[in-house]
Amino acid sequence: MAIILGIDPGSRLTGYGVIEQQGRQLRYLGSGCINAVGSPRAPLDLAAKLRIIHDGIRELIEQYQPDEFAIEQVFMARNPDSALKLGQARGAAIVAAARANLPVHEYAARLIKQAVVGTGAADKRQIQHMVTTLLKLNVTPQADAADALAVAMCHAHLNYTKLVTAGRRR
Amino acid sequence: MAIILGIDPGSRLTGYGVIEQQGRQLRYLGSGCINAVGSPRAPLDLAAKLRIIHDGIRELIEQYQPDEFAIEQVFMARNPDSALKLGQARGAAIVAAARANLPVHEYAARLIKQAVVGTGAADKRQIQHMVTTLLKLNVTPQADAADALAVAMCHAHLNYTKLVTAGRRR
Repeated sequence: MAIILGIDPGSRLTGYGVIEQQGRQLRYLGSGCINAVGSPRAPLDLAAKLRIIHDGIRELIEQYQPDEFAIEQVFMARNPDSALKLGQARGAAIVAAARANLPVHEYAARLIKQAVVGTGAADKRQIQHMVTTLLKLNVTPQADAADALAVAMCHAHLNYTKLVTAGRRR
Repeated sequence: MAIILGIDPGSRLTGYGVIEQQGRQLRYLGSGCINAVGSPRAPLDLAAKLRIIHDGIRELIEQYQPDEFAIEQVFMARNPDSALKLGQARGAAIVAAARANLPVHEYAARLIKQAVVGTGAADKRQIQHMVTTLLKLNVTPQADAADALAVAMCHAHLNYTKLVTAGRRR
């Protein structure tokens, strides 16, 4: 049995999803978004935003006690400015996991979509739909939370495949 | 009197520089590089690198007890890939400062060069030379450490200007 925390970082919203894996069985434990937007009247500066992301993930780690941490790998960012902002959010998130001694796994977007939807070209709605179906949820999670659950499910799937393959080799 | 920690983050080397400011007087306290390169035989994964940067800065904060944290602002990153890597290093560094409740100040590269060399178009060697001269160092710091000292000196300069201006207004 393993508890997996999946994260979809962003400079404004960071999605998170937590699942429990037991063999092929997956159980939904929680999901949502860490909001580092601030209010229009009181916008947050960079340091405050990054601290919210870091501390939010640290709280999730304390609450759910995950065994593994999974995050989407970024191959090609759209442009340098958004890449820098995304990088800063990723840095804050990954440091929280590393400081808690969690193994950090990165998965390419195509692989995550392949694992959850069955095709590497799936869009956000398809991911939301499949995450809701596979985890038997009554309510569809918002897009960032669904993406975070998807990366956790991708890790669970590949982890299970690895374990089974290793078992067969014995 | 204020102690200022300047940081020049990078995905491989993160320069740091610490100075003490008393009015117009600046005193050199220390500088160097946090090395997150690893060895060719044992390259570090992303999480390990970011943790080294974060923990390194946390140790500097414990050692020097700075009052302020200064970092170069990134306006135009070269390309999305390097922007992402730089962003991750910046995220890890800024989180360390934010968690220690240090005020985080960002300064544009042109402003830093203007403050230290007198022209916004200075190159790395000119920065090393002026940092060495102004802080009366016997040994020229390596480029990343010199850049970190420069951003700390830029903050000290603007901070002093602000204080003097505020004093005159009274």
